[in-house]
Amino acid sequence: MDAVNALIRTRMASEHAPRIPEVTAHLVEAGGKRLRPMLTLAAARIFDYAGPYHVHLAATVEFIHTATLLHDDVVDESAQRRGRPTANLLWDNKSSVLVGDYLFSRSFQLMVETGSLRVLDILANASATIAEGEVLQLTAAQDLATTEAIYLQVVRGKTAALFSAATQVGAVIAERSEREVQALFDYGDALGIAFQIADDLLDYTGDTAVTGKNLGDDFRERKLTLPLIKAVAAASAEERLFWQRTIEKGDQRDGDLDYAIALLRRHNALEQTRADAFAWTNKAQRALTVLPRSDMRDLLSDLAEYVVSRLK
Amino acid sequence: MDAVNALIRTRMASEHAPRIPEVTAHLVEAGGKRLRPMLTLAAARIFDYAGPYHVHLAATVEFIHTATLLHDDVVDESAQRRGRPTANLLWDNKSSVLVGDYLFSRSFQLMVETGSLRVLDILANASATIAEGEVLQLTAAQDLATTEAIYLQVVRGKTAALFSAATQVGAVIAERSEREVQALFDYGDALGIAFQIADDLLDYTGDTAVTGKNLGDDFRERKLTLPLIKAVAAASAEERLFWQRTIEKGDQRDGDLDYAIALLRRHNALEQTRADAFAWTNKAQRALTVLPRSDMRDLLSDLAEYVVSRLK
Repeated sequence: MDAVNALIRTRMASEHAPRIPEVTAHLVEAGGKRLRPMLTLAAARIFDYAGPYHVHLAATVEFIHTATLLHDDVVDESAQRRGRPTANLLWDNKSSVLVGDYLFSRSFQLMVETGSLRVLDILANASATIAEGEVLQLTAAQDLATTEAIYLQVVRGKTAALFSAATQVGAVIAERSEREVQALFDYGDALGIAFQIADDLLDYTGDTAVTGKNLGDDFRERKLTLPLIKAVAAASAEERLFWQRTIEKGDQRDGDLDYAIALLRRHNALEQTRADAFAWTNKAQRALTVLPRSDMRDLLSDLAEYVVSRLK
Repeated sequence: MDAVNALIRTRMASEHAPRIPEVTAHLVEAGGKRLRPMLTLAAARIFDYAGPYHVHLAATVEFIHTATLLHDDVVDESAQRRGRPTANLLWDNKSSVLVGDYLFSRSFQLMVETGSLRVLDILANASATIAEGEVLQLTAAQDLATTEAIYLQVVRGKTAALFSAATQVGAVIAERSEREVQALFDYGDALGIAFQIADDLLDYTGDTAVTGKNLGDDFRERKLTLPLIKAVAAASAEERLFWQRTIEKGDQRDGDLDYAIALLRRHNALEQTRADAFAWTNKAQRALTVLPRSDMRDLLSDLAEYVVSRLK
């Protein structure tokens, strides 16, 4: 991970435009979990991969992640990220859009250096899924007709596509069998979905002191996340009027969040969402069983439990 | 070009997010000149390239171009593009940012399909130069210390990098010699610079009825383009105060544009800028001389004259 961090620092430099490393450093040095690059390193290490390119690919996925965060904060008009003011607030939306583009192109250069067309294909497809999921999330917001299938598509875009690409490319550069490549894709996909479902559940049930986020942000932003989708599907005619007023029309008043949470509880939506998250964790762990036993495999398995441990 | 347009229409579709083709069609169907894809097709045809990939690469460069237009209009807060309201005005900034990201990832998929790592390397580097140039333009705006060297760097980013990549990849997929690949890079680079200098000059001298743009937009937006840089370099102490007030401080009043143009004329800045544009056109044409004689070579040579013909 030290090598990854060193490569990130080298490649985020720009000879001509000092604004770029300023904005990037603000985000990269803010102490993110570096979860995605860690996935790539661990995946490659399961197979004792000894070449240099797992470091390039780990830096690649972190750059893609950072680029999407910069663009997300513009799209969501966010003011805080990782407990600090966002780049769009500190500089401006322009810098966030353009520095995001720069990091995406830098990630592209890094992956070309691996010389693997298969890796490029995987990351190109992941990029398209990410961007499509973001647009889908934009158009699905405030729409009570959003189904669990659409939610899953959005989650694959915003979270799981980069997780699965991060783990899959680890097996690809280690030149492993299709079965093992697929297993690492399946692991990353299920891990990303479990991670995002847990995040969306904690938005209604979390301890603010632990999550560092406000309770009910998604409700206030009128996002159709899994707990809400389940509650809307089970709603009585009267309850449906409540959801239409608060989510579709955005007319929210004092006490609405409490009533929304009461409805989620009444229809067991929180419990069912929690069960879904654990089911995806189990799926992630099962995918690992075709891989050789190793400390790194155990680490990935533990990680799948860790992302839902916050729900216990 | 019909094949390119058909491929663009197929690839801008999105199964899940109909907002994407809506936004893209608005821009793609608006009757842009399709200059960049035409460059790729012509470059490949000089060598009688018969494979399918010049079409993929032509669509690739048009997607990259469209993605940068979407992001540019957000960054510049533009309301009009190609005589129509911009996407950020018709939909919103969010859609422009995310659909731009989507088109960039689609372009990435298209270029991976060519299976050429050299092509991927060229386009990755072009993408980085484009993004860096955009950030540089952002930070150089309103800065009277901007030199001709910085201007050239910005122009390479915003225009010439995609022109040179578009022509260079034509020679690469046709598997031509390094000398010919370099010649097509040099041609595209010089063509792009001539094109942008001409555009920047017309902003002060153009006929609004012909250019479709307002006179003096760059002055009002306080952009340091080549005519202004030359006039600032030659400014007397008193003139410098005028530039500081209008460009650095942005305090512009009635009659300032007329006075600015008078200063450009006084220091021969318009004439010198015009001479620079013609010099880059000559450089573009000279680069072509190492290539085999063909109708397509003549077409590219004529094109280099065409981009400055508006200045006569």
